[in-house]
Amino acid sequence: MNRQIILKNRPKAKPSEDDFEFKEIENNEPRAGEILLESKYISVDPYLRGRMRDEESYIEPFKIGKPIESMIVAKVVKSRNPNFNEGDHVIGMLDWKEQQLSTGENLRKLDTSLAPASAYLGVLGLTGLTAFLALDKIGDLKSGETLLVSGAAGAVGSIVGQIGKLKGCKVVGIAGSDEKITHITDKFDFDEGINYKTTEDMTKAIKKACPKGVDVYFDNVGGEILDAALQNINKAARIINCGAISIYNSTEVPMGPRPEGILIKKSALMQGFLVRDHMQDFERAIQQLAGWLKQGKLKYDETILEGFENTPKAFIELFEGRNTGKMLVKI
Amino acid sequence: MNRQIILKNRPKAKPSEDDFEFKEIENNEPRAGEILLESKYISVDPYLRGRMRDEESYIEPFKIGKPIESMIVAKVVKSRNPNFNEGDHVIGMLDWKEQQLSTGENLRKLDTSLAPASAYLGVLGLTGLTAFLALDKIGDLKSGETLLVSGAAGAVGSIVGQIGKLKGCKVVGIAGSDEKITHITDKFDFDEGINYKTTEDMTKAIKKACPKGVDVYFDNVGGEILDAALQNINKAARIINCGAISIYNSTEVPMGPRPEGILIKKSALMQGFLVRDHMQDFERAIQQLAGWLKQGKLKYDETILEGFENTPKAFIELFEGRNTGKMLVKI
Repeated sequence: MNRQIILKNRPKAKPSEDDFEFKEIENNEPRAGEILLESKYISVDPYLRGRMRDEESYIEPFKIGKPIESMIVAKVVKSRNPNFNEGDHVIGMLDWKEQQLSTGENLRKLDTSLAPASAYLGVLGLTGLTAFLALDKIGDLKSGETLLVSGAAGAVGSIVGQIGKLKGCKVVGIAGSDEKITHITDKFDFDEGINYKTTEDMTKAIKKACPKGVDVYFDNVGGEILDAALQNINKAARIINCGAISIYNSTEVPMGPRPEGILIKKSALMQGFLVRDHMQDFERAIQQLAGWLKQGKLKYDETILEGFENTPKAFIELFEGRNTGKMLVKI
Repeated sequence: MNRQIILKNRPKAKPSEDDFEFKEIENNEPRAGEILLESKYISVDPYLRGRMRDEESYIEPFKIGKPIESMIVAKVVKSRNPNFNEGDHVIGMLDWKEQQLSTGENLRKLDTSLAPASAYLGVLGLTGLTAFLALDKIGDLKSGETLLVSGAAGAVGSIVGQIGKLKGCKVVGIAGSDEKITHITDKFDFDEGINYKTTEDMTKAIKKACPKGVDVYFDNVGGEILDAALQNINKAARIINCGAISIYNSTEVPMGPRPEGILIKKSALMQGFLVRDHMQDFERAIQQLAGWLKQGKLKYDETILEGFENTPKAFIELFEGRNTGKMLVKI
């Protein structure tokens, strides 16, 4: 038996399990040139929420009744393509299916001796690449500067913070529980952490944690935490708009204090970052990240739910902040 | 008799004549090393409103009871400084006084054979420098792109539009009267203009005027026009936050739709620009601007009020949109 997960409804606000449907599909045999893949790890990511809307964006919206797709690590179980052997691990944008056929196009073979297969969905995948390249292209960190990171215990945030420390910055993280704060300071070497859920005045809390002001703010959340960060930026600050999970489920246009006055006063920059715009830099970034991994300078977390049937649940839990680090489903 | 204009009260919202006071002061004779200056042209600028607030900014706030200062073209009427002769015209940050003493420090002598003295407060002064350098440092205009400019009939906006045309762009201007729209298309060669005061849906109007989308938005106004521009930006758009005259007089925190979602979706950039950060580029910019002026490729407007006593009035009229081009007071 082979199952797939299709989009049943476009979520109204927060996605729910009712928005997804499991369908049984036929098992097919590979034809000449094809391979049969068995999904091993499925990556669930906040940006998929955007593809569930029926609106023009940087990537095509999902279609009702069709399978969701995301980055998946899969094992080749049958091959009629000379470039792939049975037992190879590959990664690519694949359907949420237990098994599927592929021509091998747009798949990349993994070196599982360098890092475990799941790492290619996290620290060596789009999350690690996002952290590294957004800092590289927009952040322009200088030693001695102050880096503030929201979603600091998340997959991207925890790598951002560690790169900040490797570059000689003071690094302050924002996360949503005391456990996460302890975790980012203990495991990931952040200098300080702020639990936004128990902090009444985030503007003051950031000011206290960043007495020299904020030079780079790596924003994974948007909304009111971004507002508070803007109140603390230094001259020529760089704000990396990498994610806005706090507003992704909004049903109305999210409103907030206008930033243009502060941007002018501080000659500061806010810039949206999409890792897909920087594919020509992926190889360089993976080399650097893999180097740090090997030297033990880069740590990472995974929150792994077991079982294909838990894929929608894993996706939904992203919006409840239940993950520490990269959220994955293991099959 | 010599008069000066001091700040009497910090304006609450829109500045009024009651916020200023004229005081008679003594005429002084220059001591050794000093020159006596007679003000000829006073520049009034929207950013002065910011200095009237008692808050930390990129430039020191004005003090109650002390004279306002701005860029002034003055004539040397007595000199005891070997670097200056009687009759020289100079420019610098000077007090709103009919006559004043100076050591000559931070003053620049003007070549009035290259352009009339008043031009050094406009197209060859901070306004021209702002237009040129903001486009140079942030805009990165490419031939064939679409440039949208707000405050298009203003001192900065009209130069921005002309530089856009010189760079081979489609240029669309936003201004507040049909006369201004006719003016920017007729005199300054803008391709199209939008009168925001008679337009109900600015988002649609910009879409219609910019069918290929907006690549660079040069924002002099902030607020709702910025919101509408953001709805029309292309991938990798650059938004230059040069001014926010629509919110300078706000007494409450100005609210609006959050931009972070659009910035991410479009990998776009919003960056504040202060010309004072780029003094090392002034000479290069003036050379380029003076070159275009000589070749007749750059036109400019001045709105000149006559009489020292009209200086507060000229400043206040900036916020009523009464000026076309650079607002000056001639004495």
